[in-house]
Amino acid sequence: MNTPAKPTLFTCVSPALLHLYDVQDAIVVVIDVFRATSTIAAALYNGAEKIIPVDSVQGAIELGEELGAITAGERDGKIAEGLQHGNSPLEYPREFITGKTLVLTTTNGTRLLHMALKNGATEVITGSFANLSAVCDHLVKSGKNVVLGCAAWKDRVNMEDTLFAGAVVSRVRQHFQVFCDASLGAETLYSHARIDTWNFVKKTTHYHRLSAYGLEKDMQWCISADIANVLPVYRDGALVVHS
Amino acid sequence: MNTPAKPTLFTCVSPALLHLYDVQDAIVVVIDVFRATSTIAAALYNGAEKIIPVDSVQGAIELGEELGAITAGERDGKIAEGLQHGNSPLEYPREFITGKTLVLTTTNGTRLLHMALKNGATEVITGSFANLSAVCDHLVKSGKNVVLGCAAWKDRVNMEDTLFAGAVVSRVRQHFQVFCDASLGAETLYSHARIDTWNFVKKTTHYHRLSAYGLEKDMQWCISADIANVLPVYRDGALVVHS
Repeated sequence: MNTPAKPTLFTCVSPALLHLYDVQDAIVVVIDVFRATSTIAAALYNGAEKIIPVDSVQGAIELGEELGAITAGERDGKIAEGLQHGNSPLEYPREFITGKTLVLTTTNGTRLLHMALKNGATEVITGSFANLSAVCDHLVKSGKNVVLGCAAWKDRVNMEDTLFAGAVVSRVRQHFQVFCDASLGAETLYSHARIDTWNFVKKTTHYHRLSAYGLEKDMQWCISADIANVLPVYRDGALVVHS
Repeated sequence: MNTPAKPTLFTCVSPALLHLYDVQDAIVVVIDVFRATSTIAAALYNGAEKIIPVDSVQGAIELGEELGAITAGERDGKIAEGLQHGNSPLEYPREFITGKTLVLTTTNGTRLLHMALKNGATEVITGSFANLSAVCDHLVKSGKNVVLGCAAWKDRVNMEDTLFAGAVVSRVRQHFQVFCDASLGAETLYSHARIDTWNFVKKTTHYHRLSAYGLEKDMQWCISADIANVLPVYRDGALVVHS
């Protein structure tokens, strides 16, 4: 009797490469560590009812008014004009966000999420260090093919998303066929960076972008494992806690 | 008196990302370690007069006939039908190639070279471990912006090209502004892999592809530093030794 083939796992380091991967038969993990998918984990962990990702700032403003929801988001690392809140996981404590709907738009993360949906992904979930274990457990349990999709920075490879992909690969590799140099690279980089992640992150482009706005605390939160360990899944137009 | 700003250096990990980088004001280093740019270094080092990179197999056949040149190339790692020679650096010893013209077409390398030219690169050179020092010396001396362009595998990131980019970054970083996570990643991977490059290469997808054709010796040649240390530069339609 043949053992059934393991599902495949690929890492896609930029949205501009997503077309190279067959997502129609796969779970896509949208990864935007600084900071969309960290903020999503934080808000849902702290009791948000749902998060509606929207491509444009104008779209977020309009939908927020229509639903009476909180609007949030950033462009180029700053709160976008016309929105109430930014893209910081620290802005969404339990006493503020429980039971509420958040309409969120960001530079890279929400864009990739919509690309994955448009390309027909079987399921879209979001991942960040904050919910590393929840993501890994779900991937292993589901037994489906996986594409780890890094949101990157305006299509350029970024380090923090690659590192998170590497953290996932290192945890779940044995359950998948991993014939993918991007996954090998991500895993190797993670094994190097995990020894002193914060000092490695300080070498990245995004660190320089965000530290210019005084966001060191945000970044430290975003690279801390399992501090908002929920599984956000996209259902009926919104990210909700997987049940 | 202000110190003049250092030139920039970026690593582009896939041809599908080349449009993100301004190559009009830069030297583009085309990197296709397995095996186009290793073969180019070998042939020129061993005295080939010039190498004409051609996109299609049919184009290579026609041009070869017209010029009475040697035709060579591969598709998917194998000698392409209708061509005389493959894409192996070991096929071009001095006694065979001196003074001759080689018309070469490959899966990834020649394609990236033509993309760089079409995008208006100031200068196109080719790099591989075989000519690592020649490439680095030229980049430092020229003082121009640099884009390290990995040929990758059908637009997917590959490890061997990334490693070579990392080797270059680690040697020349101090002479450039390197605000680029892909360069940071490549350099970190190279610092990890250099300790036992061959065993690391054995984990890559391309190793599995090429070893299936018995090409281990080729690959070992291709990751050996400075064994064909010339600088191939694209001039008037062909790669020639920089003078």
